[in-house]
Amino acid sequence: MVDYKLLEALATIMECGGFERAGEALGLSQSAISQRIRALEIRLGQPVLVRHPALAPTPAGQRLLNHLQQVRLLERDLATTLPTLETASPRLRIALNADSLATWWAASIGDYCRQAGVLLDLVVEDQDVGLKRLRDGDVAACLCASSQPIAGARCVPLGQMTYLPLATPAYIDRFFFDGLGEAAFRQAPAIVYGPHDQLQHRFLAHCGYHGPFPYHLCPSSEGFVRLARAGLGYGMIPRMQAAAQLAGGELASIAPGQALEVPLYWHFWRHSGNLLAGLTTHLEAVELT
Amino acid sequence: MVDYKLLEALATIMECGGFERAGEALGLSQSAISQRIRALEIRLGQPVLVRHPALAPTPAGQRLLNHLQQVRLLERDLATTLPTLETASPRLRIALNADSLATWWAASIGDYCRQAGVLLDLVVEDQDVGLKRLRDGDVAACLCASSQPIAGARCVPLGQMTYLPLATPAYIDRFFFDGLGEAAFRQAPAIVYGPHDQLQHRFLAHCGYHGPFPYHLCPSSEGFVRLARAGLGYGMIPRMQAAAQLAGGELASIAPGQALEVPLYWHFWRHSGNLLAGLTTHLEAVELT
Repeated sequence: MVDYKLLEALATIMECGGFERAGEALGLSQSAISQRIRALEIRLGQPVLVRHPALAPTPAGQRLLNHLQQVRLLERDLATTLPTLETASPRLRIALNADSLATWWAASIGDYCRQAGVLLDLVVEDQDVGLKRLRDGDVAACLCASSQPIAGARCVPLGQMTYLPLATPAYIDRFFFDGLGEAAFRQAPAIVYGPHDQLQHRFLAHCGYHGPFPYHLCPSSEGFVRLARAGLGYGMIPRMQAAAQLAGGELASIAPGQALEVPLYWHFWRHSGNLLAGLTTHLEAVELT
Repeated sequence: MVDYKLLEALATIMECGGFERAGEALGLSQSAISQRIRALEIRLGQPVLVRHPALAPTPAGQRLLNHLQQVRLLERDLATTLPTLETASPRLRIALNADSLATWWAASIGDYCRQAGVLLDLVVEDQDVGLKRLRDGDVAACLCASSQPIAGARCVPLGQMTYLPLATPAYIDRFFFDGLGEAAFRQAPAIVYGPHDQLQHRFLAHCGYHGPFPYHLCPSSEGFVRLARAGLGYGMIPRMQAAAQLAGGELASIAPGQALEVPLYWHFWRHSGNLLAGLTTHLEAVELT
């Protein structure tokens, strides 16, 4: 049988970001924590974490953390039938896209998590990285735009988010007074979330434009909207995120009637008990538009 | 003299996240881009980038990118006295804290960047990582809570951001009906931005509580506020970010009258021309509270 005290030490170090804080969290000295990690590495015959360039689990350490999370979720189910059994509130580690977190996510799952006593450990990731984390067992679920199946996981479609090409009216007057032509797109700065964000490129391709365009890079959903509101550029923004600015006339579409639909899929481990299953039921009921 | 075509190929690969897209951006074939990188590596006698586990510059490549950015900023100044000289719009790479980007940042520098024709390349980082990036030359400036001086950079204080411990009234009724005691803090879930976020710990220490507490992890400013609004936890939120929710009664302080002040400092390269100096003048005029 695995010694779960050792796995818990490893998990706490990763959650707290260091040996000293993990010791505080578990009520142990730093040297006691180090001893547990050493004991784990001796049993395993290989390291479970690295300290440089940043504190991180090794692939073997990651598999142990994955296993621990699955055991904790199953213990949780056990506790519902054996209420006198004391189990810690499980932390559900979920990768999701920034725009969902900035819009509908919390309001949709808030009641469920409160009632079930779930603590969330959210990770914001591009879909490729998010799915890789699910495959590696680093997260128990992943919310993203890809329907690519992952072995051992179920995939449920949640609907689509609608993105509109938005800017301030003053920005539109300045750069698009003559319509959406090649000359305008060459001059008008866009806003792009990061190197993997292709929404602006897709919108331009829709408009028949395939050339280069200037853009700001801003890897934050709310920062993205703030840059657009400050008149720095246009960008594809979820309609639900800009509802107030659209209603108030602070932002407007540079191409009225045009939109991009981005599907969302919920991937989650198959054998992780009722907590994830319950969360999934809640997510399936969400109205994204 | 350095061959800047080669450096530009390297910079474009990093900006676009790949050789193929960099080729498209520069109007070159993928093999032409690869040849430029090979030529650069032969001259330098060492690699300038790695492809695994993720595409990234080597330390030597990073020093080249740093140098290229500085040259571009100086070219920009030259172009103001020689307006017929054609220079590309420079992209200013800046590390900043998530809460500034989610609140005052864009509105404060929007006019300046628009007039100066600056494109921003923003990187959201903890202060330690942000300052390290400045030291490594990966960013030209860093906005963070640390006043720790960096060689070659100037440091300007910008004021303080005020954080309040906020939750929904229903949450406060449920967990803090009996005041802010040890029993309440042991039960009430907090929201923590990430392993390096110590604001909640500092607030609890202010209240005389030093024990463990349950918490959600949410590495997104807006996601943080969304979790609080959904009643999942309490957390330290910038007053300016929650102004509407405070006025509307949707969020309230769990400890009225208590606040934490977080100072902000603007670190930037000394010898990078007028563009950064102009941006600095604008930032010095910002009213943070």
